[in-house]
Amino acid sequence: MLPTNLLPDEDVADLGIRQLKVLQKKQGFRFSIDAVLLAHFIQPDTAQRLLDLGTGSAVIPLLLAARHPHLQIDGVELQPEIAQMAQRSVQHNGLETQIHILQQDLTQMPSQYYQQYDWVVSNPPFFPLGSSKQSPNPQIALARHEVACTLEQLIQCSVRCLKTRGHFALIHRAERLPEILYYCQQYHLAPAQLRMVHPTIQQPANLVLLDAIKAGRNTLTVLPPLAVYQSVNKLTSDKSTYTDEVFAYFQTT
Amino acid sequence: MLPTNLLPDEDVADLGIRQLKVLQKKQGFRFSIDAVLLAHFIQPDTAQRLLDLGTGSAVIPLLLAARHPHLQIDGVELQPEIAQMAQRSVQHNGLETQIHILQQDLTQMPSQYYQQYDWVVSNPPFFPLGSSKQSPNPQIALARHEVACTLEQLIQCSVRCLKTRGHFALIHRAERLPEILYYCQQYHLAPAQLRMVHPTIQQPANLVLLDAIKAGRNTLTVLPPLAVYQSVNKLTSDKSTYTDEVFAYFQTT
Repeated sequence: MLPTNLLPDEDVADLGIRQLKVLQKKQGFRFSIDAVLLAHFIQPDTAQRLLDLGTGSAVIPLLLAARHPHLQIDGVELQPEIAQMAQRSVQHNGLETQIHILQQDLTQMPSQYYQQYDWVVSNPPFFPLGSSKQSPNPQIALARHEVACTLEQLIQCSVRCLKTRGHFALIHRAERLPEILYYCQQYHLAPAQLRMVHPTIQQPANLVLLDAIKAGRNTLTVLPPLAVYQSVNKLTSDKSTYTDEVFAYFQTT
Repeated sequence: MLPTNLLPDEDVADLGIRQLKVLQKKQGFRFSIDAVLLAHFIQPDTAQRLLDLGTGSAVIPLLLAARHPHLQIDGVELQPEIAQMAQRSVQHNGLETQIHILQQDLTQMPSQYYQQYDWVVSNPPFFPLGSSKQSPNPQIALARHEVACTLEQLIQCSVRCLKTRGHFALIHRAERLPEILYYCQQYHLAPAQLRMVHPTIQQPANLVLLDAIKAGRNTLTVLPPLAVYQSVNKLTSDKSTYTDEVFAYFQTT
């Protein structure tokens, strides 16, 4: 079934989880496994309020709403066209009572959102400005490079919007871990859980998952590593099979 | 063969690697796998100068000297009695041309040692003052708790003693990673390689290995995780078998 409100430059992707569908720009930034990993990393209690910063097509809110039916989720997106598409995705999945999309620049978050959330989560742009080739497509550039918001601005906004002892959860490039932890220290977020994500267990980590607590105590646990794909099969060179843990993320129908 | 210069409160341990022996206090801090992991983590070039801060019984210098016969190693130890024992260990292994032990407080390192080293390594006390029960044995307390030197003082001294682009390598408790990276940032050490150490691959990391470069570029690689023991065998509950990688550390005769 195609949603009736699909624009010509959009298509519908099946998230592969609980029959969720997401609208995406055909030529834009496409959802990836990163959002799935982050959505399964966090463990919110029921009836909490959660904010997703830079929600894009609202993949993270959709995944979280399906898993946590009492969670109230706000997704913030800067680009009006993307925010509007995200809103139609939410409606298409019948989740509009649980998910609200705000078209908003997170560096100018209105004070009514301060100290309102139990969780702030983000799958932000991975690359600093000038660090690698930027897409000529502005929607892709905004999603991949820190055009509209730096890592520091993201963390600053997150802390403002969190209640005391609220959780900030992030997925980011592993190589940026020192910066991430540095800004956590600067903004009084205490790293509570850290999990390195490796393509296969024999390879360096490409991603890191972090859960940090506003004004929390310094008692970090570095969790067992997460491998996304099974070890390379030497006979077939097959790298494309998910590990049992990641495969299970897609089995929750 | 017992060394003739053994004191009554000392014994001789076999390091299990290249027939190396180390003198230790019977009631003191005993060498552990940590030193072996650190010695195998670093990759010095030949004929470089290396400094081990808080060398204790000189286990790290002994292991490194045996693997890297052209490395010139200085080991700094605060406690006169331990420094003197470390010196006798070096002599017992016939490595006195390669290893020099300095009885010295690293927080007051004389300026003649500044900018002299290609590598500074350390397996420092793991616990901040007051963080857990301190041993009534002052030698054990100094080795386990930051009685004589804090993490910040250690990193400050390391940076002073390193040449520009020299490497600082550390093994420490995984839970202290945020602090370690914070001080690296403060003292212009760029984390280059990070490796989480897990008792078994299914368990949280208890240790972290770090290699950071003085005034280096920010290009961190998070290496594949290191598991020390094989996964728990469900039939035998045997947790004590080293993984192939760690087992191989002891096979270099």
